Amino acid sequence: MTPEEFRSAGHELIDWIADYRSNLDQRPVRAQVDPGEVRNAFSKQPPPTPRPADQLLRDLEQHIVPGITQVQHPMHFGWFPSNASLASTLGDIASSGLGTLGISWESCPALTEVEEVVCDWMRQLIGLSGNWEGCIQDTASTACLTALLIARERASDYSENRGGLQAEHKPLIVYTTEEAHSSVVKAALLAGFGRDNLRMVPMVGATRAMSGPALARQIEADFDAGNLPCAIVASVGSTGVTAFDPVDEIVEIAAEHAIWVHVDAAMAGSAMLLPECRHLWNGVESSDSISWNPHKWMGTILDCSLFYVRDVQHLVRVMSTNPSYLRSTVDSEVKQYRDWGIPLGRRFRALKLWYQLNIDGIDAIRERLRRDLDNARWFAEQVAQREHWQVLAPVNLQTVCIRHQPPGLDGDALDRHTLGWVNAINQSGAAFMSPSKLDGRWMVRVSIGVEATTRAHLEKLWQLIQAEVARG
Amino acid sequence: MTPEEFRSAGHELIDWIADYRSNLDQRPVRAQVDPGEVRNAFSKQPPPTPRPADQLLRDLEQHIVPGITQVQHPMHFGWFPSNASLASTLGDIASSGLGTLGISWESCPALTEVEEVVCDWMRQLIGLSGNWEGCIQDTASTACLTALLIARERASDYSENRGGLQAEHKPLIVYTTEEAHSSVVKAALLAGFGRDNLRMVPMVGATRAMSGPALARQIEADFDAGNLPCAIVASVGSTGVTAFDPVDEIVEIAAEHAIWVHVDAAMAGSAMLLPECRHLWNGVESSDSISWNPHKWMGTILDCSLFYVRDVQHLVRVMSTNPSYLRSTVDSEVKQYRDWGIPLGRRFRALKLWYQLNIDGIDAIRERLRRDLDNARWFAEQVAQREHWQVLAPVNLQTVCIRHQPPGLDGDALDRHTLGWVNAINQSGAAFMSPSKLDGRWMVRVSIGVEATTRAHLEKLWQLIQAEVARG
Repeated sequence: MTPEEFRSAGHELIDWIADYRSNLDQRPVRAQVDPGEVRNAFSKQPPPTPRPADQLLRDLEQHIVPGITQVQHPMHFGWFPSNASLASTLGDIASSGLGTLGISWESCPALTEVEEVVCDWMRQLIGLSGNWEGCIQDTASTACLTALLIARERASDYSENRGGLQAEHKPLIVYTTEEAHSSVVKAALLAGFGRDNLRMVPMVGATRAMSGPALARQIEADFDAGNLPCAIVASVGSTGVTAFDPVDEIVEIAAEHAIWVHVDAAMAGSAMLLPECRHLWNGVESSDSISWNPHKWMGTILDCSLFYVRDVQHLVRVMSTNPSYLRSTVDSEVKQYRDWGIPLGRRFRALKLWYQLNIDGIDAIRERLRRDLDNARWFAEQVAQREHWQVLAPVNLQTVCIRHQPPGLDGDALDRHTLGWVNAINQSGAAFMSPSKLDGRWMVRVSIGVEATTRAHLEKLWQLIQAEVARG
Repeated sequence: MTPEEFRSAGHELIDWIADYRSNLDQRPVRAQVDPGEVRNAFSKQPPPTPRPADQLLRDLEQHIVPGITQVQHPMHFGWFPSNASLASTLGDIASSGLGTLGISWESCPALTEVEEVVCDWMRQLIGLSGNWEGCIQDTASTACLTALLIARERASDYSENRGGLQAEHKPLIVYTTEEAHSSVVKAALLAGFGRDNLRMVPMVGATRAMSGPALARQIEADFDAGNLPCAIVASVGSTGVTAFDPVDEIVEIAAEHAIWVHVDAAMAGSAMLLPECRHLWNGVESSDSISWNPHKWMGTILDCSLFYVRDVQHLVRVMSTNPSYLRSTVDSEVKQYRDWGIPLGRRFRALKLWYQLNIDGIDAIRERLRRDLDNARWFAEQVAQREHWQVLAPVNLQTVCIRHQPPGLDGDALDRHTLGWVNAINQSGAAFMSPSKLDGRWMVRVSIGVEATTRAHLEKLWQLIQAEVARG
């Protein structure tokens, strides 16, 4: 494809995208396709001859769009918000257009240095001190694995340079709670700790926050048993009920024993753009690593997960590679982000943050987040006021966990009722929420925060839900 | 930013990109900036107020583009080709425009199923049997780590579900060569094996291919010592000299002892699009996992690394997570790509492959790859014919490793001479090649394969090099 062909097809594509984004609230929220339906619309063999770009646009429209669950839709309340703001989308397009290669500073100095700049902007915007340095990773899952790997190496005095984790004879232990994201357990297992060495610390009642005293007792018990407490993963805005582990208590306990504290603020990091929310992670300055995803509520298009550490030298020592073909004469003066994580090559992801912060501006972003917090409070009030409805967990942020429990209904029958009404709405395409389990029973998470969602959409949702329950 | 503002700024950006791609051969190949120069062009504080998109375009032009090493430039011969074909760029833009979320099949059925389709197309195009299933990962580094993690779990009978790697008392051993990519050692260390358990198998002379007999002897020695051979990473087109480990010999040795074989074909996977190159990885069908990067020579824009395995059930068993908030009613009928690698969330990366295969077509891609192979042979002949010049390794593919050795020059003086002429050319911006070490001495890798590079550019390069050496 020549640049002139690209120009022409690019203009068509931009118009198509602008139209698509304008009209997506006319589409069903959840993809209305069966398993295999999209796959079967495509040939099993690769295209034998070239096809013009406008045919591909038709395929997009006919075969791909129906297979998209519309997470930018104002009636999307599933999982967590995954806003792909148009300003950041533009930055992502610029990044694609530039076609850069990030494998070393030399391969694209701008890619490295703009990432330094925006990571430092974001640090300031969430109120972290200058002791922190950050980089962009793909997801919080990868960041959590990175954190546990560097924690493992600190606790084992760099066993990677000797016999590895398999030569350590004092089991290293990782602490978190049942409320932690599934990626935390996955990261601990991939890092080689083993399920037996993963402690699910008890939580405090309905807050589902880690109990500080229980953590302290568990750590003591592990020391007594001859184990070596290695890392604590604190959830700051958990996926289930947006629980906040008490970071201040955790870092105090950790400090006594030099245990690594990783703060998983994948969702709630966006809230830290608001000074009034920062009490929710008090103590974070004394943790060791933090990850959070602008690609959720804040609205930087996926993938953009920020990973901050205080001891960069330690991170780099564990993660570095320095083959001769990547060396250059300025190595001592520059950052090599390949030594800050698992992948070597990286895209120019900083541009999407740079575009969003410049075009939308931080004031508008903050205003939108406050709107969503208000909407969540309003929605929770409606639910709590209505007979036989419950709000099941504190509304710490923008996610409201609800259940409808008519008199006499409990156990499996209650589960069937819950799944019945939520799946009916989800399948209709009118709105989408995430059914999720709490203490073994199904409930419904209403996660507010899509850029396009206003109070009116929440009013509509509440009507929809009540109508569905009345019908059921 | 509204869809209409996006439309207008998007058109400007498309024009800017088309112009940029048309004219980039007018720019210096290597970025002509000092460390910190790009960073210092930006404010240390986040933008206090919004700025219009056209101002950002000016910043791109003035501050960012000068900081880009032009890997799409026809005179770029560094590292490996990192082609960002315009067809795949268009697909990447479509992906950004759609703003999808890939965390489960349900969150975007099309994202999952188009990835299935294109991974299977690519499987057919490189001549693998239907026994293989694949997914897209970010880089070959991540794919190699994934391979070693699943190898570790197979060899340890899923130690992750017990005491982890730290409870294994028979050290698990990984085999590769000094010629393997730096990410292989990194992956082995991150996976917890430890440097002491990483065997650098001897290589066969100038081919720098792993010696089969030496591998067999090393494995026997490990068994005798009470160790457990776990995984072999075979390089198929190494980064240094494009060495090819003998996959057929390796899989035969591995089969005897149920050792996992991961084939790292990051670069050479593109060559397997050409049937006449496939003898170079004979035996690959009997390996356990393969990764290769369409984002290199083939020209799918970064990041696009294909990861194929034969035993998907095993992969998923090690990598899976299944929290309640990600479950849906069709889970048993669909693929969940979150269970095929480390990250949970994924972009719609399949679109860039889909666009490239549809718009450019496989015939044109293959023709270009053959042109590059011809050009490499031609260039190697020019060098070999010239007095005092050496081609240092077999030209297995499109990378030519060269050195100029005037009479009487060796040791450190030869190194100074080599770095002198290559750095002078690199710094001039006229062309870019990668200095690299071979057996402790510097040489120069001329890696051919940028989409825009023709025979005329190679003629120009050879003149440039000779002129520089004559001047030195």
